[in-house]
This record gives sequence, C-alpha cells and structure tokens, in this order.
Amino acid sequence: MSAKKTDDKQAKLNVNEQSDAKKELIELGKSIVQDINKANNPKIELSVRGLSNVVYDKQSKTLQLGDKTAQRFFFNAGHSKKFLQTIEVAAICKNLLDVNKHASLRDVFYMAKRTIPNTKINVVDDQKESDKSIEDLEIITGFSRENLNVNANKMGSVAGKVVIEDSGDTIDWSKLGSGGWSIPSNVENIKFKKVDAKYVIYMEKAAVWERLHEDRFWEKQNCIIMSSQGQTTRGIRRLLQRLSTEHNLPILVLTDFDSWGHYIYSVMKFGSISLAHMADEMSIPSAKFLGIRAHDIEKYGLQKHFIKLNDQDISRLKQISEYDWFKNSKEWQAEFKKMKQFGHKAEIQALSARGISFISETYLPEKIKNKDWIE
Amino acid sequence: MSAKKTDDKQAKLNVNEQSDAKKELIELGKSIVQDINKANNPKIELSVRGLSNVVYDKQSKTLQLGDKTAQRFFFNAGHSKKFLQTIEVAAICKNLLDVNKHASLRDVFYMAKRTIPNTKINVVDDQKESDKSIEDLEIITGFSRENLNVNANKMGSVAGKVVIEDSGDTIDWSKLGSGGWSIPSNVENIKFKKVDAKYVIYMEKAAVWERLHEDRFWEKQNCIIMSSQGQTTRGIRRLLQRLSTEHNLPILVLTDFDSWGHYIYSVMKFGSISLAHMADEMSIPSAKFLGIRAHDIEKYGLQKHFIKLNDQDISRLKQISEYDWFKNSKEWQAEFKKMKQFGHKAEIQALSARGISFISETYLPEKIKNKDWIE
Repeated sequence: MSAKKTDDKQAKLNVNEQSDAKKELIELGKSIVQDINKANNPKIELSVRGLSNVVYDKQSKTLQLGDKTAQRFFFNAGHSKKFLQTIEVAAICKNLLDVNKHASLRDVFYMAKRTIPNTKINVVDDQKESDKSIEDLEIITGFSRENLNVNANKMGSVAGKVVIEDSGDTIDWSKLGSGGWSIPSNVENIKFKKVDAKYVIYMEKAAVWERLHEDRFWEKQNCIIMSSQGQTTRGIRRLLQRLSTEHNLPILVLTDFDSWGHYIYSVMKFGSISLAHMADEMSIPSAKFLGIRAHDIEKYGLQKHFIKLNDQDISRLKQISEYDWFKNSKEWQAEFKKMKQFGHKAEIQALSARGISFISETYLPEKIKNKDWIE
Repeated sequence: MSAKKTDDKQAKLNVNEQSDAKKELIELGKSIVQDINKANNPKIELSVRGLSNVVYDKQSKTLQLGDKTAQRFFFNAGHSKKFLQTIEVAAICKNLLDVNKHASLRDVFYMAKRTIPNTKINVVDDQKESDKSIEDLEIITGFSRENLNVNANKMGSVAGKVVIEDSGDTIDWSKLGSGGWSIPSNVENIKFKKVDAKYVIYMEKAAVWERLHEDRFWEKQNCIIMSSQGQTTRGIRRLLQRLSTEHNLPILVLTDFDSWGHYIYSVMKFGSISLAHMADEMSIPSAKFLGIRAHDIEKYGLQKHFIKLNDQDISRLKQISEYDWFKNSKEWQAEFKKMKQFGHKAEIQALSARGISFISETYLPEKIKNKDWIE
C-alpha cells in the first residue's frame, strides 16, 4: 500500500483525477468478482488505521500510515457487514463519478441507507459507518474522497491577484468586492491561470480576513489572504497545499497565541491521526507559523490584553508541547515555556487596541520583512 | 424613539447611510456637551431592551421594541460606567466612520479596553460590555451596527443571475465557479446592478447549496440560492431582506423538518428578542417556509429516514408551537402536531436517498410549481 501511495503521489498532484479514481474502484470490483469466480472467500486488503499504525515520518515531516495491513473477508461474521458497506459505498462513488456529480458525507449516508431485501437489516444505520467506508476507499484506491466526488464542508474566503478557472468560469480573486471568493468544499478541479503572489497568509478568523481585505493587504503586499471561521476545512487545506506545491508559495499561518491556534497550525503542517492516510494531500510540511508569537506579546505591548489560561488551556499546552514534532524544536519549546510563564494567552485582535489597521500597516509588514516566523 | 425609528425606516432602506449614522453620533455628543454647559447631569435616553419591552407587532408581523424608555445619567453611581462605555464606543464608531473602516465586535472591545488614567479601572473588562454599548448606540441612533461600521460574522455563499457593485468591483454571481460569492459580514454598501431572478431560496446547509449549485438550479429555475453553515448571520439576513424589500423577491426557506429548522425560519421572518430594536432591518416578514413540510415526509417516503425525537427536541417543539406568531396559525399547528405524532424528525439530505439530484430535479420544482409553502 505504501509503495502504491508513493507511485500515485505524482499523479494526484494533477488536478483532474476522476477517471483514475474510477479505475481504482473498478479494479476493486474486479478483484472481488475474481475471488468469487475462483470460489475464494472475497476479500479486501487495506492498511490498518488508528494510532497503532500511525507514524511521524521525520523525512516528510508528516503523520503517515505505517505498513500494517489487514484483510477483510466477506464470509466472516465479524467482517461481513463492513465488507458490504465498503462495497456499497464504492458503488455509490462509482455512480457519482459516472454522472460527474458530488455528494456530501451526509448524502452518501442516505444513499447507502437501504434495507437489505427480505431482512430487517439496513446496510448502514449511522453515518459513522458510511464515513468509515469512505476512509476505507481512500486507503484502498489511494485517492482522497474529494477525488471520489465526496465533498467535505464548505467554508472560507480568499482574495489576491490570482485568476482561476472553475466549472467553466474564469474567476479573478482580486475583483470580488468585500466578500471575496467563497471556497468550495472540493478544489480538486480548479485550474490556476495566473498566480501573482509572493506568499499566502492563512488566518483562523474571518474578522481578521475582513480587516486585511478592507485594507487591501493582498494588493499592497502582493500576497493571497485566506480564512475560514474556526475550522480549517479540507477544501481550504487542499487549496493551501496546492498553492504550496504547485506554485511554491510559502504558507504563513496567523492564529491567536493560544493552544487552539498552535493546534490549528500543527494539523495543517503535520497532519492528524485521523487523516494519516491522506498525509500527502492534506499536510503542508512547508507551512510556517507567523504569529502571534511570544515575543510579539512583549514587542507590541499585548500583555495589557492578556486572557488568563484556564485548566483546559494548561492541559492542552502540556499535550501539544509533547507532540513528537514539537518536542525537539527549540523555537516551539520556547513559545510553550513563555506561555506557561505568562500564565496567559492573547488574541490576534488585541492588536486592534493599537489602531484598527495596526495589524496590516505595522505588525504583519514588520514580521514578514524580518522573516519572523517558525518553520 | 418609536416615532424616530419609523421616520428613519425609509432612509435606512437606502444603501449608503454612513454620513447619517455619523450625524446621529455627533448629535449624541452635542446633547451631552449641552447638558454639561447647562450644568445639567449629562444623560442618555434610550428604549428599554429585554423581554419586558418586547412586543409582537401583529401589523408588521415582527418582534419590536415597545414604548418604554429609560434615562442613563453620568452622575449616578449605578449608571456612570455604562454611560462612559456607551460614549467611548460612540467615539470609536465615529472614528471608524471618519476613516471609512470596519471593525468586528471583538476589535471594538479591544479598542475600548483601556485603563482610565490614574485609576486601576478599565473602561470595559468584558466584550459583553462593549457589545451592549453597541446595542445602545443602535437604539440611540436608529442605525444598525453595520451602519456604524461594526461588522458581524462573515459566513455563507450565494449564486444567481445577479450583478452587484461592491468596493469598486463589479461582481456577477453567475460566474463564480463552484464556490460562489462569499457573503461579507456587512452588505450595506452593495449596489444591485442587475437582478434577474424570480425568488431566493435560503438553505441552512452549505452541502445542500453545493448540490443545487452543481445542478445549476439557479439557472434552470431563474432564482438565487444562498446558504450559510448553521448560523444565519446578520450579513445574510440583511442581504435577504434587501432582496426582499428592494427587489420584491419572495424568500423561500429550506430547512430540516425539525425544531431547529423551524427556529431558523422563525428568527428570519419574525425577528428575535435580542434584535427587537432592529426588527425593521433584520426581519423578513414576507419569508415563506418551503420545507421540509410534514406532508413532504409522506409524499416522498422520507419516513424510512426518520430520526427519533429526543427529549430536547420534544421540549423545543412545545416551546416553538407556543410562540405568539405560530399559536394561531393553522398551518403551523398542523406541522407541529404531525411532528409530535411522527415522534421523529427528518433531514433535507434524506432526499438524497431518492437520487443525488432528486432535490433539484423533482422535489423543489414540484414544491415551487404548487406553491407548497407556509406564508
């Protein structure tokens, strides 16, 4: 599975992968038909997911699935239902690819949720089951669920001197008024026609994005600004990842000075346990943490706007500081130590106390000029 | 205050009201300076907020503030801090209007959060205080906080045959690929240049929006599609309200068949207690509830995909069925009764069980053709 994943990697960097994803689904079907024809017990082979098979790969600097694989058999009371679910969901994905339409996870659940004839048994009873089947198919085919036409959540906005082609439209991210372009859940089929930017700033807060956008920060600094609201969706992560790999743009991450902000960055850069099998598509190893850093607090007088760490903050801080990829980083350990010493966290919007456009006129230009980020 | 609100109503329907909002802030300042010059105790007069002064206005069919007013004095130990906070935030808004920039509620909090010289007292210690001051100013000036350049959350997407002008850009909502236009938090300054649509469908789920958008529902049905993710932001409500009042478009609301969906509709159409003072800007009395309706469940066989009501659902159902504006509606009472009988709720995405595009090819066209909605 690992070798296959690596082979596929280059292919997956291309934008239109639907036909290849379909090919993989058809192969899965054929292998099962072959088992049946040979009177073998039909089986699916796939990598083991979960903590026991997740490794932090120091070379790629991402969380990856290890080499453990498992077989799932049709004639096995413990496997049979999962086997059926995976095949049912594979058929649904194949149909979606055939008609070139996209479904949400919830849609797939309802499409799979039917009663098996002459029984009282449903193929799936809970969305978790169809979600797991989609993860199975990601591992089996080596393609992300977006390439199987199953979309994640839609959220977030983007602006900058970028022209894209999407669904037959040519869209200029610099000419979309105060709103910007609404990032779709699935960005696999977007074609970049022009990318005139030196870097991308991703921020966790839409209000900060609106601040930078109103100040036309992206125009003055020749960059791209992107945000969601809280959650960093898969669509956003893939869009950032594509700008990073296809256009060599540095991805700078701007969050609050708190453990939640550090976690957002951690997941974007290194990946997460639940997405270890999608590390190549979903992680951005080149992402840099721009701020807010501990020394910004002192430099810009943000102590006045400190918020006291609560018990949850303190335990999160401890957890995150022990992550494999932060454990040996002097710079990160210095950040964590300072937060502990401060006993406080600080929000990006505290910069507004220095003036509404302090962030876009002083803070960010200084930070970027000084390359004041953590790699 | 009520008379003033009504006078201002027409003015507020225009799009660019900043200079008038500023005029009101200046008048507030002048009236206080006058009090001081006359050696009177400086005072602010404003409508009482909260349940005791909220009435359901049967004529406008919205929740409105009643006639009760209160005075707040500077030389009054109980009023003094609130008085100061309101004036401080008024000054912040005046500055924002002067420089023509927008701030979020959080920004305003940090801008107001300073220590009074020679004391250890902060003007505000908690965002709730500056938020309350902004609500005060909405009541005092008769202008929404958006007109005072204070923005709400940014969320949501829109598509349709509409051309707008915003921040110097001309934006065609029909040519924005799979993402659509990202709705800003503040839509007061948008100019509609072309609106070619018969109605607007607002849906609570971004995934449903993506379904309709991929099927180019807005093109085939000549309508506008709009969604957020969960929360209906003020920006979205104002955008819908402007399309309703300025372009006479029916607003059709599409939610799950559950109390949360009914509540979303209720707030959009009738307003809410906390926004009673902004009823004219934030309510959409002409909004119609399109579905999912109880008889849709039977007609389209959605019983198979029922979700059992839990205790919270049952108590919400009871609460909502007793709302003043639902209490005497036969159609609504029938919906509530059916839900109780069913003992179940149903999601809009359950329609996907009938086929991925069942919603856009069958369900919605039939409903709209038959005018199958609740007024």
